[in-house]
Amino acid sequence: MNSVFETPNPILFGRGTSALLGEKATGLGIKKALVVYDKGIKAAGIVDRLLDHLKAASIEIVVFDKVEADPPDFLVHEAGALGVAEKVDGIIGIGGGSSIDTAKGARVLLTNPPPIRQYSEFGGHAPDGSKMKPLIVIPTTAGTGSEGSPGGVITDTEKGVKYPILCSVSLALIDPELTLGLPPGITASTGFDALSHAVEVITSKAPNRFSEIFARESVALIAKYLPIACRNGSNIEAREAMSLAASLGGMALRGPLGGIPHDIGMCIGAKYHAPHGTTVGCLLAETMKFIAPAVPDKLRIVAESMGEPIPADASPEEIGESLCETIRKFYKEVNLPLMSSFIKTKEELIDNVDSLYKGTSFTPRPLTREAVIDILANSFDKN
Amino acid sequence: MNSVFETPNPILFGRGTSALLGEKATGLGIKKALVVYDKGIKAAGIVDRLLDHLKAASIEIVVFDKVEADPPDFLVHEAGALGVAEKVDGIIGIGGGSSIDTAKGARVLLTNPPPIRQYSEFGGHAPDGSKMKPLIVIPTTAGTGSEGSPGGVITDTEKGVKYPILCSVSLALIDPELTLGLPPGITASTGFDALSHAVEVITSKAPNRFSEIFARESVALIAKYLPIACRNGSNIEAREAMSLAASLGGMALRGPLGGIPHDIGMCIGAKYHAPHGTTVGCLLAETMKFIAPAVPDKLRIVAESMGEPIPADASPEEIGESLCETIRKFYKEVNLPLMSSFIKTKEELIDNVDSLYKGTSFTPRPLTREAVIDILANSFDKN
Repeated sequence: MNSVFETPNPILFGRGTSALLGEKATGLGIKKALVVYDKGIKAAGIVDRLLDHLKAASIEIVVFDKVEADPPDFLVHEAGALGVAEKVDGIIGIGGGSSIDTAKGARVLLTNPPPIRQYSEFGGHAPDGSKMKPLIVIPTTAGTGSEGSPGGVITDTEKGVKYPILCSVSLALIDPELTLGLPPGITASTGFDALSHAVEVITSKAPNRFSEIFARESVALIAKYLPIACRNGSNIEAREAMSLAASLGGMALRGPLGGIPHDIGMCIGAKYHAPHGTTVGCLLAETMKFIAPAVPDKLRIVAESMGEPIPADASPEEIGESLCETIRKFYKEVNLPLMSSFIKTKEELIDNVDSLYKGTSFTPRPLTREAVIDILANSFDKN
Repeated sequence: MNSVFETPNPILFGRGTSALLGEKATGLGIKKALVVYDKGIKAAGIVDRLLDHLKAASIEIVVFDKVEADPPDFLVHEAGALGVAEKVDGIIGIGGGSSIDTAKGARVLLTNPPPIRQYSEFGGHAPDGSKMKPLIVIPTTAGTGSEGSPGGVITDTEKGVKYPILCSVSLALIDPELTLGLPPGITASTGFDALSHAVEVITSKAPNRFSEIFARESVALIAKYLPIACRNGSNIEAREAMSLAASLGGMALRGPLGGIPHDIGMCIGAKYHAPHGTTVGCLLAETMKFIAPAVPDKLRIVAESMGEPIPADASPEEIGESLCETIRKFYKEVNLPLMSSFIKTKEELIDNVDSLYKGTSFTPRPLTREAVIDILANSFDKN
């Protein structure tokens, strides 16, 4: 299998790098910026500091602060239209995956006609990238990896589904200090999103040797540092490791795209509006059991990266059981909630199975409806 | 310390990928290509197969086959002038670092005026990249990493020194099958070039977390597979690992540039015309002893990646001694020649010290003239 390596997103990583926002925006020729974020980030005090850097660089600011989780298409349209009306010459996205992906959608719409759905990678066409205005993103969580990936995910609010669009960023400023104030719950759920990216990349049916290097490192960092970041949010070494791990996950999502946890978890997220990392992460352990017969050696790599290597004589089934158990333990250790905390009954979940499974093109073992039911049922009130 | 990640070179890696040359060149809009290689590669039969792929895609071919080791500036000028005169719309570089770097230089000169020296990163200015024609490179050794790096190295034949120029590639087709016929000596020397890149990146005074991930993987692959590739050249698994390791080394050379082995080794190479990987690699072991007090923990990382971890209670000096010994053993294992095989006497070498030391800006410990003499003397007839 050939491996493609190509990363469109230049990254500047390190403590304090967000203070360079004004300088970097000016360097990219931005004089009037659409700044995209959500009210929670604003309340956390992060936005004001960043806006000050823009003001100090004499950059005019147009605020779009209506970002919502599972970024809905209509807000992408609104942000894009605002940017067009205000004739901005660049965009700054600040926040978690929803803010970054809304900013990516708005970037597309600054120079391409709406609706955004026509640029869906599921059956649409790529936007014209030749005239795109610069986009700088500043993640404030360590999970999405969108800052390192060449795409974003938008929610089709008519159909209640999510789809990916293609949009790179001109610069990602990844400053772990911005994540110091994240509460343990968000730290854990975003961290499990990053873990899922990395595990799905390693076990993808389209393996990629470059992506696997990033993903292995990401898994190792998360296994070591996520529990520390959850227990002690002000541990900057742990925050730095998690910011790096999350970005590596995004960078690895090149070639191999999501596997079962993301494919099904995103549908659960679109339907039940629980945190993305939780809806995805809660399926990760059980997925390992299902794919073990297809890629036992890849599961060994994941287990080893987590610091829980599997005995050499284990059968594929035993490998699946073992890694499933390791991930369950890890899920518990960071106190993530079970699906039963945001979906009423197992029966309701199973009744909805056909709306939760849209296709899992990168899973290494063909997925049947029965297997989906199994994974959902076994993940519902156990992890 | 902040880490920048940005790679300008898209890579397609895997067995058989070179057969895609015609299709990929057409995809990049190439109709008439300057094909840059040396006569040795032609004699090995590799070029003809690749030219056939271009012909099958109806691409017109202009041959430049005069590439020499330590690519001299006048050949870069000649290749560039040929491309301009023939109005080619793209370049294909086939071979080791010398062919790829000659092709990079020619790419610059297709759309920028000569001489090439004005684009030296040592005091020159960057070429205008906005109109550059596409460049596809196909490495036939596993060492240089130039296919993954954003620059090339040209020899200033008036002054007898080497300097880097900035030039990315549009696509690198990395096909390990092309290295199956490399004799053990070239396999070893190019492999040690790759090892030196990776070790210099890890121990650089400008550390970069992304580069370090690539470099660690590169060291681990080389430690495991280079001896196999030297003993049994037709072992495709070992060749594949070495091709990957070499490219990872080039990709890692972003931010951290060369350290002592490359800085001094390139001067030795420019003066004595021994294989690049040998002139660089023969200094690697002794360099570890010198930099150990500055970056003992980084040396531990190298040792661990080589599968020879250092006891936790070792002093910096002991760490330096230990890693030096590990690298010496490895140098012997792959049968690389000592400096004494291509330089007559230790006295001659030391007498030339001032021409062999042009500055080592990325070494983590400031280098004195005396230290250079020590490293040269201790590396001369021992390794």
